[in-house]
Amino acid sequence: MIKINENYLLLQPSYLFVDIAKRVRKFQEEHPEKKIIKLGIGDVTLPLPQACIQALHKAVDEMAKAETFKGYGPEQGYAFLREKIAQFDFKNRGIDIEPDEVFISDGAKCDTGNFQELFAQDIKIAVPDPVYPVYVDTNVMAGRAGQLVKGEYSNIIYLRSTKENNYIPDLPASKVDLIYLCFPNNPTGATIDQQELKKWVNYALENKALILYDAAYEAFIQDQNIPHSIFEVPGAKQVAVEFRSFSKTAGFTGTRCAYTIVPKECTAYTQEGSPVNVHQLWMRRQNTKFNGVSYPVQRAAEAVYSPEGQKQIKTNVQYYLNNARIMRETIAQLGLHCVGGKNSPYVWVECQQDSWKFFDLLLNQAGIVCTPGAGFGKSGQGYIRLSAFNSLDNVQEAMEKIKQVL
Amino acid sequence: MIKINENYLLLQPSYLFVDIAKRVRKFQEEHPEKKIIKLGIGDVTLPLPQACIQALHKAVDEMAKAETFKGYGPEQGYAFLREKIAQFDFKNRGIDIEPDEVFISDGAKCDTGNFQELFAQDIKIAVPDPVYPVYVDTNVMAGRAGQLVKGEYSNIIYLRSTKENNYIPDLPASKVDLIYLCFPNNPTGATIDQQELKKWVNYALENKALILYDAAYEAFIQDQNIPHSIFEVPGAKQVAVEFRSFSKTAGFTGTRCAYTIVPKECTAYTQEGSPVNVHQLWMRRQNTKFNGVSYPVQRAAEAVYSPEGQKQIKTNVQYYLNNARIMRETIAQLGLHCVGGKNSPYVWVECQQDSWKFFDLLLNQAGIVCTPGAGFGKSGQGYIRLSAFNSLDNVQEAMEKIKQVL
Repeated sequence: MIKINENYLLLQPSYLFVDIAKRVRKFQEEHPEKKIIKLGIGDVTLPLPQACIQALHKAVDEMAKAETFKGYGPEQGYAFLREKIAQFDFKNRGIDIEPDEVFISDGAKCDTGNFQELFAQDIKIAVPDPVYPVYVDTNVMAGRAGQLVKGEYSNIIYLRSTKENNYIPDLPASKVDLIYLCFPNNPTGATIDQQELKKWVNYALENKALILYDAAYEAFIQDQNIPHSIFEVPGAKQVAVEFRSFSKTAGFTGTRCAYTIVPKECTAYTQEGSPVNVHQLWMRRQNTKFNGVSYPVQRAAEAVYSPEGQKQIKTNVQYYLNNARIMRETIAQLGLHCVGGKNSPYVWVECQQDSWKFFDLLLNQAGIVCTPGAGFGKSGQGYIRLSAFNSLDNVQEAMEKIKQVL
Repeated sequence: MIKINENYLLLQPSYLFVDIAKRVRKFQEEHPEKKIIKLGIGDVTLPLPQACIQALHKAVDEMAKAETFKGYGPEQGYAFLREKIAQFDFKNRGIDIEPDEVFISDGAKCDTGNFQELFAQDIKIAVPDPVYPVYVDTNVMAGRAGQLVKGEYSNIIYLRSTKENNYIPDLPASKVDLIYLCFPNNPTGATIDQQELKKWVNYALENKALILYDAAYEAFIQDQNIPHSIFEVPGAKQVAVEFRSFSKTAGFTGTRCAYTIVPKECTAYTQEGSPVNVHQLWMRRQNTKFNGVSYPVQRAAEAVYSPEGQKQIKTNVQYYLNNARIMRETIAQLGLHCVGGKNSPYVWVECQQDSWKFFDLLLNQAGIVCTPGAGFGKSGQGYIRLSAFNSLDNVQEAMEKIKQVL
């Protein structure tokens, strides 16, 4: 008899964004005349940068001729892209990451979801709260999470990110082995400075823990004192893996390209305590279960690093940050507390009531879709997330409507 | 302490094609003047069909304008593609598969590798021998395979495919829960008729087992009596999942698009024997760990089903099948036994000596790269796989060289 992985039965009934989509669909069916402005899911709206479009066309033409056609590429990604990433995103910032420490993939969601496969089932994991649901759900599927008790899993250590700690969690009180961190944070938009980040790296070094550092929103960092990479912290290469993405950086949410840095020093251990190279484990995982990213897409990602590409993505990032500023200022005018929106496309708003109630209020009264904070975890209750990934017009219109409703 | 998944330590040292690449690189470094013809890895060589090229360019242009730009798509894939697949690959053949039973992905390697995640760790799995290594390695990583003893895993049931049974394995002698089948077969090129396939479906129905049916080479089927899908067999929708790919059908190995059919009737069970819907499990898995396939790539796949696309892919398939015919005839002239190459791009050659020795002989004496059968499992020993995915000129030249050497 083919038996299921019963860990799946421990998952919470539905995926956050699916729930939201259902409520929005219902509202639209009941009010087909009303305009809806989506400030919910973090999906970009500006078209792909011209440099990427040109690179895509060129690569497609290569696929049309036998002499330039590309079949299977390297599972790890093409060297032309890995070299650009190592140079621009790391070496140019004084961080020593080599091209062969870069793994190209079709998404940071896949990579942050898949990385836990490399580790034992009985490790202790810590996740931020509120949190991007993928970190938790993939560990539930793997049988690490324990039982669901009042919306939280018994074996997971939740790192509370609250107003009190400026949305930067304290180090865990008990020992943990695998730590998920995300800065600039999704969903709160909070950032971390080098000194705070150093505490985490030192914790990992002292406890032989590993940090999975999600830096998908790195491109939005503007302030000088905010680290762009965990590898800016000395010693981090032994104890951290970093996830990056072109999704938000260059509008690739529908084009699909991301990358993960697994330094060659990065170490995990056998049950007996013998060191094992995490880079080689991930390489083996990817060689076995992945077949590389579409060639034209890798060429498009490469174009992000051309002089025009760099200019174009910066213009787009500024466009979204201007939206975020408008949202932040409106929220402040309304006398509500918020965080984020300065080095992040997200504004995390304290709504002084139940998240889903506030979600329904904004949807039903103003036609605005946000993301209820409670969907990201217990500490998200009483908050909503606003996303700046929309047009300036829509953001301005949405803020006017919010002012009328609140 | 961050402990590794020690199942990784049970994996055989290296991935077959990585080993081959190393030997080829060594030969090239030592003999830079010698021409190498690669009949090894099953990678296509003809450019993408023009219909796909046009669709790619058009979709790239859509990505350049805000009004037509596409961000995140549905994890399951766009309806425009799922509808074409259901219609052309199934309904037109009298098979009742609905668009919402189709899941678009970036590769059959990923899907065949990931699907085992849905099942309990203590299920008994059966794999063909010889076999595409991904089926085995992903189960080793999941801890299902047991210990490696003389090149085989103690908990896996190997379904021997040999000259004696015409490369169609017999039903397992002991009970199994999850069965991997692949027809037209990789690596042997053997096919299965409806009556033989029915035995497997009936076995699965009787034993509440599940069949993972890899039909990545379906496009090469020419004979009328060979089923294109396992769902041609009555009852199969309850007990089978089918994997298809555009890689070999339309030259998408570097473009990346595949699909998996999970019928809504398909059933697995809890430990206590309650039925669970496999379609919903896979949906949840994909929603959590996958973010959909690149939009332009899905448009390119859709173009495969246009009248021009259908004509172009058929021309390409015939080109490769002609190569296969030449290889088969040469092998026969040399007095060697072979199978495949008629409804498959692969020719499986009995080499009457150790596979790797024969591999080295062909590489060193003729500059020809094949795939040693032993790399696919015990029953592959004494065989090599030749792939027809090359130019006609190269295939003819390679066959002339083989004749001189053997």
